[in-house]
Amino acid sequence: MEWEDLARELAQPTETKIVLLVIDGLGGLPRHDKTELETAQTTHLDRLALHGCCGVTDPVFMGITPGSGPAHLGLFGYDPIKYQLGRGILEALGSDVEVRQGDLVARGNFATLKDGLIADRRAGRIPTAECERLCARINAAVVGRPGTEVTLFPGKEHRFVARFRAEGLGDALTDADPQKDGKPRMPAKAEAPGSEKAAGAVNAFLDEVVRILADEPTANAALLRGFSLQPSIPQMPDLYALKPAAIAGYPMYKGLAKLIGMTTYKVGGATSDLFDALEAHWTEHDFFYVHFKKTDAAGEDGDFEAKVAAIEEIDSFIPRLEALKPDVLVVTADHSTPALMHGHSFHPNPFLLVAPTALPDNTGVFTERECAGGLLGRFRSIFAMPLMLGHAGKLKKFGA
Amino acid sequence: MEWEDLARELAQPTETKIVLLVIDGLGGLPRHDKTELETAQTTHLDRLALHGCCGVTDPVFMGITPGSGPAHLGLFGYDPIKYQLGRGILEALGSDVEVRQGDLVARGNFATLKDGLIADRRAGRIPTAECERLCARINAAVVGRPGTEVTLFPGKEHRFVARFRAEGLGDALTDADPQKDGKPRMPAKAEAPGSEKAAGAVNAFLDEVVRILADEPTANAALLRGFSLQPSIPQMPDLYALKPAAIAGYPMYKGLAKLIGMTTYKVGGATSDLFDALEAHWTEHDFFYVHFKKTDAAGEDGDFEAKVAAIEEIDSFIPRLEALKPDVLVVTADHSTPALMHGHSFHPNPFLLVAPTALPDNTGVFTERECAGGLLGRFRSIFAMPLMLGHAGKLKKFGA
Repeated sequence: MEWEDLARELAQPTETKIVLLVIDGLGGLPRHDKTELETAQTTHLDRLALHGCCGVTDPVFMGITPGSGPAHLGLFGYDPIKYQLGRGILEALGSDVEVRQGDLVARGNFATLKDGLIADRRAGRIPTAECERLCARINAAVVGRPGTEVTLFPGKEHRFVARFRAEGLGDALTDADPQKDGKPRMPAKAEAPGSEKAAGAVNAFLDEVVRILADEPTANAALLRGFSLQPSIPQMPDLYALKPAAIAGYPMYKGLAKLIGMTTYKVGGATSDLFDALEAHWTEHDFFYVHFKKTDAAGEDGDFEAKVAAIEEIDSFIPRLEALKPDVLVVTADHSTPALMHGHSFHPNPFLLVAPTALPDNTGVFTERECAGGLLGRFRSIFAMPLMLGHAGKLKKFGA
Repeated sequence: MEWEDLARELAQPTETKIVLLVIDGLGGLPRHDKTELETAQTTHLDRLALHGCCGVTDPVFMGITPGSGPAHLGLFGYDPIKYQLGRGILEALGSDVEVRQGDLVARGNFATLKDGLIADRRAGRIPTAECERLCARINAAVVGRPGTEVTLFPGKEHRFVARFRAEGLGDALTDADPQKDGKPRMPAKAEAPGSEKAAGAVNAFLDEVVRILADEPTANAALLRGFSLQPSIPQMPDLYALKPAAIAGYPMYKGLAKLIGMTTYKVGGATSDLFDALEAHWTEHDFFYVHFKKTDAAGEDGDFEAKVAAIEEIDSFIPRLEALKPDVLVVTADHSTPALMHGHSFHPNPFLLVAPTALPDNTGVFTERECAGGLLGRFRSIFAMPLMLGHAGKLKKFGA
């Protein structure tokens, strides 16, 4: 990707500060002719739109619905097609599991093994407390291959994360999961040279689990899928000469931020906690990613009113952002989550930028349709980062 | 680059004529709510906007501030990231120095050396006639390394271009210039294998200059920077089947045009000289690049009024362009130079195209903000060339 090389060449540290407020899943679709954002009363966002310039962004490109990983990577200037994060690593980071370079992680399920067949891939959806007990039991008893350390981290119900720590593990492995009930256990297979050791460690571990849990009535086996190593990905401080901070409450977003070199902070669950943290760490950084989750959650639930309410809630905090006087302020989303679709969508994100060097446009209302007519036009999310850095004076001139 | 390959395949010569008027540094930022272009009275450009279609272009991509080299290369359809030109070669070409494949060129300064330190990097800005005398003196006396021919070409005041002609010179060299007064002379260092011979030749030459100029009172040393070889770059006539001409007064722009195969002409310093030259050579070419510099110079000076006046001046010459009845007329800029920023910026360029095949839009005023709402939308400058060639009928159909 050209931008990455250019960034290394042109980025320069300055005193200016950038705030990127991500209203997760912001874009929507109309009910009674108005989207969630068009329905919400957004006095403060509308004022920003009036003073700044607007546009819309495609996280990957038109028609592509992104997961949270690629959608955020794009916003931070990483080509989401070049840097694909395995589900295992996202799950691990999202579960606050410490992952070091070389660690192999996977998503796990407890399952019921009966007469040599997987009778239930979810072990009857055992309670979370049971999952915690089982993980602890295995962690205490497991021996593993020499030089390999295996640790389980319990998740909700039958789910957990497995971490294999050893030298020379590869992640080109097939899932150790038959995917359907009524089939025998399936070992992981190495799909490329360099992953044989990992396959051996994984399969030895899964056999050991069956021995350790032999006396359990329901959850007496484990399945693993989505094997992934900590990816090798450029760090924001190196790439952009920034001191970036993530102000996010949810583990997945903190994990992703940490993966690309942002400093993360412990942030409570209330929306005000985000802004308390932002103010507390204002002097320490020059780039702040602030993540607001409620809009996406409401969209996933298909709850139009809750999404409108969430938009109005984040709008009410905009004056606290403005009071900090960032040199560049961007408000946008990672991807759209229309309540009507009960999930992520491929629709572009509203985008607004306020800076002294921004040429104001006629956008006086912050909505999907007004932004689409804004001066910034329609662009890929990956260009949000050069745009912010450019307006902040953090990019030297290219060429003579 | 995809476009380059397509161009070779599709370009066909026709009788039609294209004029590309580049108003250097045209785009700006508002003072009292209006940019320089919005402030200027531009009757003629507004008429063109009304009859044609408009858009805005990014020279590299969003957020990237280009130098004049990359900004112009993009306009001529060359990927500015693929083709990066050294400052030395631009200066050499701009000074009408003949550069052959393999020649190493650099920008030079005469300097004052006192007690082993560079007391003045500009040798008191000696008169141009002095610079000519010194260059002639060195050219007559210099011996150089065996097989290496060194020639100096005087520029304005203390400035010159140095050309090293030998086999096997590389251009991965650090500047032979301490950059600040009060420091000792600094030799060029090879930054990559293959440039050691060049470093040796350069440093031997600079030592020789000190010996030759030992009796000079002020200019008794030389500094060299921006070492570059003639880059290997496709020629416009081959790429586009054009007979292109550059109508430009400033050496840098003529040099760049020559580098990509345009014919250049001697053009005086007055704006009317541009149009005299255009008319004089109208029958000889089918593509004319006309370069107007004053807008950029005023922007660099931070002189809002002077930039407004320059825009109004070029506007008054538009009827002379129209009288020639070009088949395709484009008016745009290489990059923006807002007076408020005293320099190049990353803001997109207003772009207007008039041709019988252009679908007119509602843009009745030629400004940054009106163009942003034009039918052509926002696009990278590199697509200006296919757009012009397409409207001129100079591109065959792609595929069956």
